[in-house]
Amino acid sequence: MSDNIQQLREYSTRLIRMGESVSLLFWDQQTYMPTGAANVRAEQIAVMSEFIHKQRTSDEAHKLLVNAEADAKSFDPDSDDARLVAQTRRHYDLMTKLPSEFVAELSRQQALGHEVWVQARKENSFAKFAPTLERIFDLTRQKAEYYGYKDHIYTALLDEYETGTTYTDVVNVFSEMKPYAVALAHAIAASTNPVDSSPIIGEFDIPTQRALTLQVVKQLGFDFNRGRQDEAAHPFCSNASRDDVRLTTRFDRTYLQQALYASLHEAGHGMYEQGSPERLEGTILAGGTSLGVHESQSRLWENLVGRSRSFSKWVFPIVKDHFPQLKNTDAEGFYRAVNKVEPSFIRVEADEVTYNLHILLRFEMECELLTGKLAFKDVPEAWNAKMTEYLGITPSTDSEGCLQDVHWSEGLIGYFPTYTLGNLISAQLFHALRREHPNIEADFETGNFAPVLSWLRENVHSHGAKFLPHEVVLKATGEPLNSKYYVDYLNTKFGDIYAL
Amino acid sequence: MSDNIQQLREYSTRLIRMGESVSLLFWDQQTYMPTGAANVRAEQIAVMSEFIHKQRTSDEAHKLLVNAEADAKSFDPDSDDARLVAQTRRHYDLMTKLPSEFVAELSRQQALGHEVWVQARKENSFAKFAPTLERIFDLTRQKAEYYGYKDHIYTALLDEYETGTTYTDVVNVFSEMKPYAVALAHAIAASTNPVDSSPIIGEFDIPTQRALTLQVVKQLGFDFNRGRQDEAAHPFCSNASRDDVRLTTRFDRTYLQQALYASLHEAGHGMYEQGSPERLEGTILAGGTSLGVHESQSRLWENLVGRSRSFSKWVFPIVKDHFPQLKNTDAEGFYRAVNKVEPSFIRVEADEVTYNLHILLRFEMECELLTGKLAFKDVPEAWNAKMTEYLGITPSTDSEGCLQDVHWSEGLIGYFPTYTLGNLISAQLFHALRREHPNIEADFETGNFAPVLSWLRENVHSHGAKFLPHEVVLKATGEPLNSKYYVDYLNTKFGDIYAL
Repeated sequence: MSDNIQQLREYSTRLIRMGESVSLLFWDQQTYMPTGAANVRAEQIAVMSEFIHKQRTSDEAHKLLVNAEADAKSFDPDSDDARLVAQTRRHYDLMTKLPSEFVAELSRQQALGHEVWVQARKENSFAKFAPTLERIFDLTRQKAEYYGYKDHIYTALLDEYETGTTYTDVVNVFSEMKPYAVALAHAIAASTNPVDSSPIIGEFDIPTQRALTLQVVKQLGFDFNRGRQDEAAHPFCSNASRDDVRLTTRFDRTYLQQALYASLHEAGHGMYEQGSPERLEGTILAGGTSLGVHESQSRLWENLVGRSRSFSKWVFPIVKDHFPQLKNTDAEGFYRAVNKVEPSFIRVEADEVTYNLHILLRFEMECELLTGKLAFKDVPEAWNAKMTEYLGITPSTDSEGCLQDVHWSEGLIGYFPTYTLGNLISAQLFHALRREHPNIEADFETGNFAPVLSWLRENVHSHGAKFLPHEVVLKATGEPLNSKYYVDYLNTKFGDIYAL
Repeated sequence: MSDNIQQLREYSTRLIRMGESVSLLFWDQQTYMPTGAANVRAEQIAVMSEFIHKQRTSDEAHKLLVNAEADAKSFDPDSDDARLVAQTRRHYDLMTKLPSEFVAELSRQQALGHEVWVQARKENSFAKFAPTLERIFDLTRQKAEYYGYKDHIYTALLDEYETGTTYTDVVNVFSEMKPYAVALAHAIAASTNPVDSSPIIGEFDIPTQRALTLQVVKQLGFDFNRGRQDEAAHPFCSNASRDDVRLTTRFDRTYLQQALYASLHEAGHGMYEQGSPERLEGTILAGGTSLGVHESQSRLWENLVGRSRSFSKWVFPIVKDHFPQLKNTDAEGFYRAVNKVEPSFIRVEADEVTYNLHILLRFEMECELLTGKLAFKDVPEAWNAKMTEYLGITPSTDSEGCLQDVHWSEGLIGYFPTYTLGNLISAQLFHALRREHPNIEADFETGNFAPVLSWLRENVHSHGAKFLPHEVVLKATGEPLNSKYYVDYLNTKFGDIYAL
């Protein structure tokens, strides 16, 4: 390693360690922090974040980067060091493209926006939120102009979350998927073989649920020596290095599926972080490469593994040990119950079939709002029309419609498609995995998840954030991202369950 | 407030918020951190601490301080602003008196020292620790020379923990106390009215103990909206602002006193931090003023309140509700059990009577080692001789003797006397409190602790760290610190219990 690379790396490691401390402040805020500490916690996070941002855009940072770039010219462009320099340049450019007054104004509006959204949602009044939303979209449009783009304004926003993926990529994905998803949802609605979800509805003691989720997450391969699981209102996974990965889950006393599958989902994120290679630790190449690839890991474990028939054969006896009231059902009944498809208003509660239609709706509306095709006052009407068209149901209130998600109020625009990309990637990865391990599902029946984890470690986790999302997908599966495998997966699985 | 003061304050607030983040990292390390994260956590803490130290000793910090000092000349020296400037100067001078290479070397030896001590203690071999201890004392001596002192080298060290208190003060305290404490311990040993501690020894379910401690700590007045209680191997209290105070406690399944009184003790520390005035929040004048005054708060709640007969009358029925196996004892039996006096080897398990003799031993040995009167190889022999003289018992191993405390290995020399100062201050404060509330103990019987907390809020907590420890004692009690009240308290209480 050249001295210049070494210096760049050391400078950046210090800031990464401080950033990890900020992650811990966030984690604590959502798990153990006393409520009275909310204001001072916001200050602590703001002070640290501002300091880190200043250091990452400082003259010193720039000088270290320029020196390292001079050295990197002679490196293999796929070497760790060349990628480290290139990624640092990308981050530096992104951060310095926005004038600092603009960053401050955006943060201010996001913080205010969140509060207005909370209130508007409580009062079930989109009208209260509309002016704020318009201001946030104005600033977001301005942000995209600062970043710059070639094809479509949406690409500039998406690039922050899923680097290298364009507006056109997302349009193509949805135009391939949408007809199949809509057709499948309609076929299921008309099925004569409906799913009974009553076995997983009832009274499920929370400490017992906790024990169950811990046992299952451990068996998947999540390393509790380098991580833990706690409770939070909105489940998330946070990490302060590969050696300190924190899962959270949420318990519903009346609905067994909630905590179990939220735990599988977050464990998928967590195992990705734990699998980041040691040699990249403390650099910007450590950890997951994008939101989409991250979501592919969580969805793969939650759905491709966790909602498979063979997984049910393993997990059901364990579930029954914890909750003897399930004695009148069996593994197949459990499998069907956790796979019930039903159009619903709330995205985060949606099943695998309808989920991506919720995302499509948001993607289309974001594009229309950004390009001025849709007026802000008309958001509820447009939302409800799309819900009716795609899912056949119509929200009766703004809260169960266009006010349900936190994202827009916080300026997270261009973010939603990564959820669908994650679903697609999960199926494409699983297909590639099965090419190598044709009988992988037989392992699930005995609770042996090591082959899946090893394969993901080797083909996804071991890259850390060194490669861009589309590079990871290509390396792991041998072809570019496409929706074929996900559509096939849904058709096969739900065609069987619903006897279509 | 002048602009210069305002600027000094803002500069410092940012560093205080970062310091609070470091506190949270420490708290997390001892409560929830996965074991595999130990190395990266050490790095996170080191990076943040080094940064904070650099900023506090930077040219900018110095310039802000000098400007503020110019303004402060015209202020009332007891005003918040004048004290803020004076305290900042004191900290700045202390931090800049040590050359940075020396600070690095001291930290390195402390970290190494801790590891060697852990190993030596495990192997029960002081000889293994002796060379390290000698190096640490050499560096400590050097540190005192950098700081400078007038009377005795010990004063320079003590000043870091208990500003304004001198070697002579500590000598005087012990020369007053020692004869009484030794005589009392001997009289108790010969008493014909021994204490039966069997009611609090047995099997005590930990979740039930946890519920009990939470109920009691809440009743004392600890604000759970701005704090919480968790479990740790070594109980401590940590805070990230007055609005985020974290208590920890430790449960012993077979010894009921452990968790209950550790909880009272830490709650005493915690209520001091929670009572720091809002107007000083985010400045170096926020929080407790010294280790000694902090310990006075913890010991006051633990012992003067918690181990009083009237407190037992209130708490015993609650204890019995939680642990019906205590049905054959009564409040008086419980009171006697938690006040059993018995010479023992381990300081942290010592009763109120013998505790300060453990401290005296350490203080004397530190002085002898610093001034070369005692050779390092002779530490175990000297330790055991003092134990025999003061407590009438002789440790049979180094681990139950001179290797028991972590302090020396971490360079915390000049620290032990603050424990005894805390005991003395607690009794002197309680005496002053009783002058105003002669029937305060009747309130304890009904679980009414508000008058105690209000008095402490007004006379101690409301000063934050604005005044030096001896100023706080004088303001609150009307006289300088002395051992009279503590000696009287012990003689009266234990004379009664042991019918002396």
